[in-house]
Amino acid sequence: MVPHLTTAQTGPLLALEQHILDAMPRIEHWLRQQWLEHGAPFYASVDLRNSGFKLAPVDTNLFPGGFNNLSPDFLPLCVQAAMAAVEKICPEAQRFMLIPENHTRNTFYLQNVAALAIILRQAGLDVRIGSLLPDLAEPMTLELPNGGNLTLEPVRRQGNRLVLDGFNPCAIVLNNDLSGGIPDILKNLEQSVIPPLHAGWAVRRKSNHFAAYNQVADNFADLLGIDQWLLNPYFSTCGEINFHERTGEECLVAKVDDLLTRIRAKYREYDIEHEPFVIVKADAGTYGMGIMTVKSPDDVRGLNRKQRNKMSVVKEGLEVNEVMIQEGIYTFENINEAVAEPVVYMIDHYVVGGFYRVHTGRGVDENLNAPGMHFEPLAFETPCSLPDCAGKPDALPNRFYAYGVVARLALLAAAIELEAEEATA
Amino acid sequence: MVPHLTTAQTGPLLALEQHILDAMPRIEHWLRQQWLEHGAPFYASVDLRNSGFKLAPVDTNLFPGGFNNLSPDFLPLCVQAAMAAVEKICPEAQRFMLIPENHTRNTFYLQNVAALAIILRQAGLDVRIGSLLPDLAEPMTLELPNGGNLTLEPVRRQGNRLVLDGFNPCAIVLNNDLSGGIPDILKNLEQSVIPPLHAGWAVRRKSNHFAAYNQVADNFADLLGIDQWLLNPYFSTCGEINFHERTGEECLVAKVDDLLTRIRAKYREYDIEHEPFVIVKADAGTYGMGIMTVKSPDDVRGLNRKQRNKMSVVKEGLEVNEVMIQEGIYTFENINEAVAEPVVYMIDHYVVGGFYRVHTGRGVDENLNAPGMHFEPLAFETPCSLPDCAGKPDALPNRFYAYGVVARLALLAAAIELEAEEATA
Repeated sequence: MVPHLTTAQTGPLLALEQHILDAMPRIEHWLRQQWLEHGAPFYASVDLRNSGFKLAPVDTNLFPGGFNNLSPDFLPLCVQAAMAAVEKICPEAQRFMLIPENHTRNTFYLQNVAALAIILRQAGLDVRIGSLLPDLAEPMTLELPNGGNLTLEPVRRQGNRLVLDGFNPCAIVLNNDLSGGIPDILKNLEQSVIPPLHAGWAVRRKSNHFAAYNQVADNFADLLGIDQWLLNPYFSTCGEINFHERTGEECLVAKVDDLLTRIRAKYREYDIEHEPFVIVKADAGTYGMGIMTVKSPDDVRGLNRKQRNKMSVVKEGLEVNEVMIQEGIYTFENINEAVAEPVVYMIDHYVVGGFYRVHTGRGVDENLNAPGMHFEPLAFETPCSLPDCAGKPDALPNRFYAYGVVARLALLAAAIELEAEEATA
Repeated sequence: MVPHLTTAQTGPLLALEQHILDAMPRIEHWLRQQWLEHGAPFYASVDLRNSGFKLAPVDTNLFPGGFNNLSPDFLPLCVQAAMAAVEKICPEAQRFMLIPENHTRNTFYLQNVAALAIILRQAGLDVRIGSLLPDLAEPMTLELPNGGNLTLEPVRRQGNRLVLDGFNPCAIVLNNDLSGGIPDILKNLEQSVIPPLHAGWAVRRKSNHFAAYNQVADNFADLLGIDQWLLNPYFSTCGEINFHERTGEECLVAKVDDLLTRIRAKYREYDIEHEPFVIVKADAGTYGMGIMTVKSPDDVRGLNRKQRNKMSVVKEGLEVNEVMIQEGIYTFENINEAVAEPVVYMIDHYVVGGFYRVHTGRGVDENLNAPGMHFEPLAFETPCSLPDCAGKPDALPNRFYAYGVVARLALLAAAIELEAEEATA
């Protein structure tokens, strides 16, 4: 069971997928060169959108949830990739403390933490879960819907080390995106912190990521001799916006107008008969809060109080005053009339699986990773590493291969982005 | 469908498997340290024997055949491991020439070559098959029993490079064990040769491998606090044997006697009520030619002409004058009354699968990889990387994990052996 593209305008995408298939050994060779120069993040997931005329990343998560949504068949791939990642980043490490988000009621998220712990344990590490929950004094065991359970233990600081009772880990693996800022307890640790603190939303900016992606997509498009727009969404930014005080609105209106004009030109070039749109979102932050779908500059002029409230706060109270305006990409992948968005998972620079977010209640031009959103995960049935180069470009293993390639381009952008952050940190 | 152990004497093995399970994170940590110091061979397969009281490698093949016998479910693991191997050994390479054995009639072997080519192609390499067949003037396409086909092309030497028509590869991957010596055409190439020429039987000696394994098994047994004999077969060697001229026989008789005495002492220590035996085989060479099962020194005294002929020549005419005498290990794994011997496959230092050689016509004390031997491959159903540490030591994932650990010990021995060969080359 897989989603089908429900647009007639698949010409450019089939051409792109065929280019990717034809260039497969060149692409893998080029990626090998890139990974010699840039260290891949420990893990990541990339949200893709597939409009039939364009296939592009729209979000790259460096603290991925959702490992529980991957097909169990891919567990050995995850374990092998985790072994490779550990070898590169901290080969001496034997004990990992995994620090998750503070969501004790989100059992879907907790199943992700349990899945991650299993992957790391099968890779040969001693793993325990350290929680930053402020009122956790004793270990707490939570039951999971799939029958398993998860024990959270209170993290203590001992000098410049984080410990649990009777457990002095060699490294700290974060599955907490630091949207609320970097807690003092995590600062200046002598243990390795993976991914580094500057990969969290306290430091990271989406616009830096997509600026790095511009560079990656440009080089990749050169390699294939294609228009990079086919896999790269336009974007721009406005700093110094205050939705509450209604400052910076003119910047937003002008940038939206400019972006829509550029997209309209591209739609004309490719004979695309859809209405261009852009997504306005916080430049820092996650979980799809503070996200708007915008089809006209008027949509962001004179926002009402409800809209302004929605836009001004993201997760854990981090206030929005920088926004990114990103070209919207239609999702024309559908399954049983529900919209489906692929999410690709990577450990080190290996694609280890993915799933579709299948959502019945949302439109083709809306963000599918929004608060309170309910989606059904549909695991990729086959891996992303086994293209059938003699087959049709939209045969399933080939579409998945294309997904894996575009996801790795976003991963490479994240690597470049983190290097730049590290240099300025 | 999996083989069952058909001996009552499983006590020591269950204890060994339990030790391995309990120490799993320590084992993986220790292996990570080893791979920091020693580069894993590009690929390898290890023949194991499981007697219920002992689990040990008896042969390590650095030019493995049989990739076609692995479960197709493990292909993604093979591809991912091949990507890692290529990155380490020759990240710049884009085009590989794969040089197989000169067996054009052995369609089982040719299917292995085709399987290897698929793995390397899916890892993103341009792969063509270069043949050393002396009378091959034109490309030759062979039909395979599984419906595929394989095109062999004549290898040409251009200066210090090997090429095919219109194909100038970056690296040469050997799947030819050089039993007949190193052909001139392979000498002093400027291209990388993988594995290196000194991994071939023209240079390699089984006794060097098992001497390195002694060291590895000793360290590993220390780590676990166990008797290394449980995973290490005794061995010794005789140089300067000439079976035709009947010289060196006394050495062989004395060494056999000594080895049987040492095994008998161990059998008494562990209350094992089987008859000790040793295997006499060529110290260089492969394909199970020149192999004898010996239960008494008398068995190697006064060999008749037929026996001497059998022992004096191995593959491609390489003459035996050095032999290894190795402790025989019973195979008490049985399936439908047939003897089954596990073979574990690795690419780089990752275990990527395995299968059982299932053989109806042979005894528990015979070599199962002998000339003209017909076996049914039975692919491992589950990977070797997913132990269930809370489960029973002989639960399937746990037995496979133990196989993968012991196979990696042999792989580590091969790495150390090749380093020593390289230093003296």
